[in-house]
Amino acid sequence: MVDEVEQVPILRLTEEGKSSADDVVVTEFPLTIVLNNQELVTLLCSPKNLDYLAVGFLSSEALLKSKEDIKKITVDERRGVVRVETETENKEAGELVFKRLITSGCGRGTSFYSAADVEGQAKVESQTKISALEVFELMKEFQHRSHIFKSTGGVHSAALCDTKSILIFSEDIGRHNAIDKIFGECILKDIPTGDRILVTSGRVSSEILLKASKKNIPLLISKSAPTDMGVKLANDLGVTLIGFVRGKRMNVYANDWRVLEHG
Amino acid sequence: MVDEVEQVPILRLTEEGKSSADDVVVTEFPLTIVLNNQELVTLLCSPKNLDYLAVGFLSSEALLKSKEDIKKITVDERRGVVRVETETENKEAGELVFKRLITSGCGRGTSFYSAADVEGQAKVESQTKISALEVFELMKEFQHRSHIFKSTGGVHSAALCDTKSILIFSEDIGRHNAIDKIFGECILKDIPTGDRILVTSGRVSSEILLKASKKNIPLLISKSAPTDMGVKLANDLGVTLIGFVRGKRMNVYANDWRVLEHG
Repeated sequence: MVDEVEQVPILRLTEEGKSSADDVVVTEFPLTIVLNNQELVTLLCSPKNLDYLAVGFLSSEALLKSKEDIKKITVDERRGVVRVETETENKEAGELVFKRLITSGCGRGTSFYSAADVEGQAKVESQTKISALEVFELMKEFQHRSHIFKSTGGVHSAALCDTKSILIFSEDIGRHNAIDKIFGECILKDIPTGDRILVTSGRVSSEILLKASKKNIPLLISKSAPTDMGVKLANDLGVTLIGFVRGKRMNVYANDWRVLEHG
Repeated sequence: MVDEVEQVPILRLTEEGKSSADDVVVTEFPLTIVLNNQELVTLLCSPKNLDYLAVGFLSSEALLKSKEDIKKITVDERRGVVRVETETENKEAGELVFKRLITSGCGRGTSFYSAADVEGQAKVESQTKISALEVFELMKEFQHRSHIFKSTGGVHSAALCDTKSILIFSEDIGRHNAIDKIFGECILKDIPTGDRILVTSGRVSSEILLKASKKNIPLLISKSAPTDMGVKLANDLGVTLIGFVRGKRMNVYANDWRVLEHG
């Protein structure tokens, strides 16, 4: 089993002088996803819950719809390979992912906004509401849970929540991966996402917003900032977008009708 | 001209209650790079210095070696296209970038470490040294310079420095883009990088480390954390890697002989 963190020797310099020490850094693990014997992609990730990541990735890329589609999952951690077999073979999967990855990742993509992707996307209609106090409490719990971040500062976290508590929590060196791991676990454990809340440590770009809205998530909460396209998509797709939740302050960027001042 | 930031109406909630306000968010701009009439890639970026980004990207992807390779650069900001014509046509450029992007971006890539990429990479031999005090001062200036981050919290910054001051500074929604913009400007303005220092706001993964070492940068300084592969590559490629520079503290993860306690 590969560890999620590794100890490295460092030289620490402060005003008081220098000293040798050990520091904990986060592990970068290359995971290759194979769908029906076709090598799709290699992701750099944190080496935990590789099956969730593979399933979540395939679902986010629209190559897998539900748990029933999955015939078999084989995780070879030593070689860094997850093999997924599905009921329906998608012959163009390779090309699809190829095209998709070019338009995905951290600032390495095109705007999805004008794409067919968004046009076909149904508006999120959930009537779930949340109070400001509940948002502050969720974010407090979310930050308490982030163990690897606390020891390394090197990962993103994501969580699926209801208004009262965290249901699923994940950490990964990639902010997309952290969210895909959540969705993969939801698929494999039959956990519905339709009236839930997604919390992320990362910035909310159009890609993150679209990923959440595809899962029918009505509320997206971030510790960080959104982009203009993130805000525009949230407005158009009916997602409540809350950013900069810090202490007892927050900004609601879209669909503020789901946020109650008291309660 | 597209603005780098945009004002959006928000609802602000604090302990004192709610109020309508305006907030500034960062713009997501899709830029398509065309090399010798071949559409290579569309990047999501901040809409500034698009020519630097295109040239820096092509250089980082080894599709362009020097300023002399460039015949013509045309920036069509309205359409979001930069066209670059080079002396030598690279017929396989499309495939190369395709393959490369799959292994690039935020946690969406394979480890370069075992790749030919790294094997062919020369060790950085520069004898440049820096004192702890100079590192603290550079980081202080770096954080002062980050205007868009201060107003939006939505961008990464990068800077090329000597031991005394910042020579080039850039901000972008993508941490790879911010660094590519620096290298693009260096190429177009004939600014050497061989004895310089690269400062980044972002985490240092194997990909960032490799990008810097290809430009022969001896010192890489980050406000944030490195990954285990970032540290391993820094050791092997002769790069001094400094992380977690905060106030008067810092960690040296590799090649600490370039860091002087006093001076």
